[in-house]
Amino acid sequence: MSESKLSEFDIIERYFKRPVTAVDIGIGDDAAVISPTPNMQLAVSTDTLVSGKHFFADTDPYKLGYKSLAVNLSDMAAMGAKPRWVTLSLTLSENLVESHPTWVSEFANGFLELAQTYQIALIGGDTTCGALNIGVQIIGEIEKMRYLRRDGAKPGDDIWVSGHLGGAALALKHLLQEIKLTQHEMDACLRALLTPTARVELGQRLVGLAHSAIDISDGLLADLGHILTSSKCAAVVTLEAVPCSTVMKQYMPSSLALECLLAGGDDYELCFTAPKKNRSEIERIAQLLQVPLVIIGEIKHGTGLSVIDTEGKAVTMVKKGYDHFAS
Amino acid sequence: MSESKLSEFDIIERYFKRPVTAVDIGIGDDAAVISPTPNMQLAVSTDTLVSGKHFFADTDPYKLGYKSLAVNLSDMAAMGAKPRWVTLSLTLSENLVESHPTWVSEFANGFLELAQTYQIALIGGDTTCGALNIGVQIIGEIEKMRYLRRDGAKPGDDIWVSGHLGGAALALKHLLQEIKLTQHEMDACLRALLTPTARVELGQRLVGLAHSAIDISDGLLADLGHILTSSKCAAVVTLEAVPCSTVMKQYMPSSLALECLLAGGDDYELCFTAPKKNRSEIERIAQLLQVPLVIIGEIKHGTGLSVIDTEGKAVTMVKKGYDHFAS
Repeated sequence: MSESKLSEFDIIERYFKRPVTAVDIGIGDDAAVISPTPNMQLAVSTDTLVSGKHFFADTDPYKLGYKSLAVNLSDMAAMGAKPRWVTLSLTLSENLVESHPTWVSEFANGFLELAQTYQIALIGGDTTCGALNIGVQIIGEIEKMRYLRRDGAKPGDDIWVSGHLGGAALALKHLLQEIKLTQHEMDACLRALLTPTARVELGQRLVGLAHSAIDISDGLLADLGHILTSSKCAAVVTLEAVPCSTVMKQYMPSSLALECLLAGGDDYELCFTAPKKNRSEIERIAQLLQVPLVIIGEIKHGTGLSVIDTEGKAVTMVKKGYDHFAS
Repeated sequence: MSESKLSEFDIIERYFKRPVTAVDIGIGDDAAVISPTPNMQLAVSTDTLVSGKHFFADTDPYKLGYKSLAVNLSDMAAMGAKPRWVTLSLTLSENLVESHPTWVSEFANGFLELAQTYQIALIGGDTTCGALNIGVQIIGEIEKMRYLRRDGAKPGDDIWVSGHLGGAALALKHLLQEIKLTQHEMDACLRALLTPTARVELGQRLVGLAHSAIDISDGLLADLGHILTSSKCAAVVTLEAVPCSTVMKQYMPSSLALECLLAGGDDYELCFTAPKKNRSEIERIAQLLQVPLVIIGEIKHGTGLSVIDTEGKAVTMVKKGYDHFAS
């Protein structure tokens, strides 16, 4: 209930107000005013990053700003939406701002540079004092009824994954001193953890081709599990088909690597299902966008998610991992 | 970075998922999908409530849920927008949930009952673990270019205020043990602090009549100051015209009462300016909605905000209060 030394208006005006297009009223009134494109639907999502849970308190603020937007872009990607507008609710501790006077400007730069890349307008926000908490709300556009959803998977669908999984989880385990990566390995994995690339364009191009999609934020098995629950289907995934990075391959098939690969989370790749007839078109998109896309399994009738090896044997520890998330 | 004992999906599904209309995809996918009314513009706003800053940690969760939405409705009111969709980002401490197992359901009830009153759909959210932090994002609709803004005040405009000011600040001073209210006084003031009524319908009816509007969240002088800065105008306010509640009147004109009345904040009434020719129409709306509306002063050429008494003398302490906010 104390007055903050930070002036809300100063912070927003100084660091976050940039020229924007496609906005009727931007930062500085009681609300922003925007004009959606006629006949489009809107996709709306929100994701919060909490210090100590989603990031370490000493994370580089530029990268934290970048990631705060990237994880929200990933939700737009998973819907096949074109991200257009964003608001930011920033709760900052006075201690942070005093001990690191450039923190806010660095955070703003990371956030706004990624916004600029996708021509997304920051239209409003709220700055308050308290434990560091970053809330982002994003609004995207989609053509009417042409969006990706979780509940459309059908038996016989291929299960696809973009990029490589597990790098962010490996980096986290290194930072938590559970494993020790070389500097070179760490550099590669840190990129996945701190500056993930949301598959925004891929998501939009999958509309009409994929039956279902989700972004892999909680780990492949947990997120694919959400598709199965929503779609009332089962799935079989082949472990060796799940795309590992070069670093990850060196640790396979240890239980630690399996955990990072299948349940690690923070990957922000897309997992989607599509009928087999769309394979060649999806491969064409992979080439066009230069995004690795591989088939890791198949949607089945029934319930449950099985991971098998190339000989068809169930991968036991993985089931535990999945059960843990599902419980 | 620890796994939460709270399951995000459980919390959202159990407490926050209610049947909603005007939503294509609601809670449960990567994003919600909504269809704005053709040819309407959208007003988008976000407001965060932080424990220890905006509310006491032991605030009744039902009232906190109510207020979390009410302060956001007030932003819609100040734009003249019709609130339609809302998202909620809830950061909860495990300690809170363990020590008060019904906290979330009570919070949800307060939030959702107010949402129901205005037929607003909760379309998405995010539940995370950490210091208690409540982020609400609201989306409303307005007819094209027909909204209230801060920068439209014109010299000669009447300055209007709805309701009565200062009650929330008095209640806060009592809770902080700076003053002692009787139980009866406290009951009246607590309503203003904990369950404020956003002037949603009033805001919509003022479109086309008011030149400028703002909601009084930071205190009358600070918020009227925002109108003046944005509109490049000055104002003169007559102290005795500022609407006091019955409780407040007993404390006038002490400096404490003046501070609560003019700089207290948390009132969520509307301050707006309108040309004199619209007086009778505005009085008609006041009667129709049964909302007290009074003229407290006039917009002038120049810069600055003066508060005078009925004899025309400047009210000195008040200027200091305003300078403090403006600095």
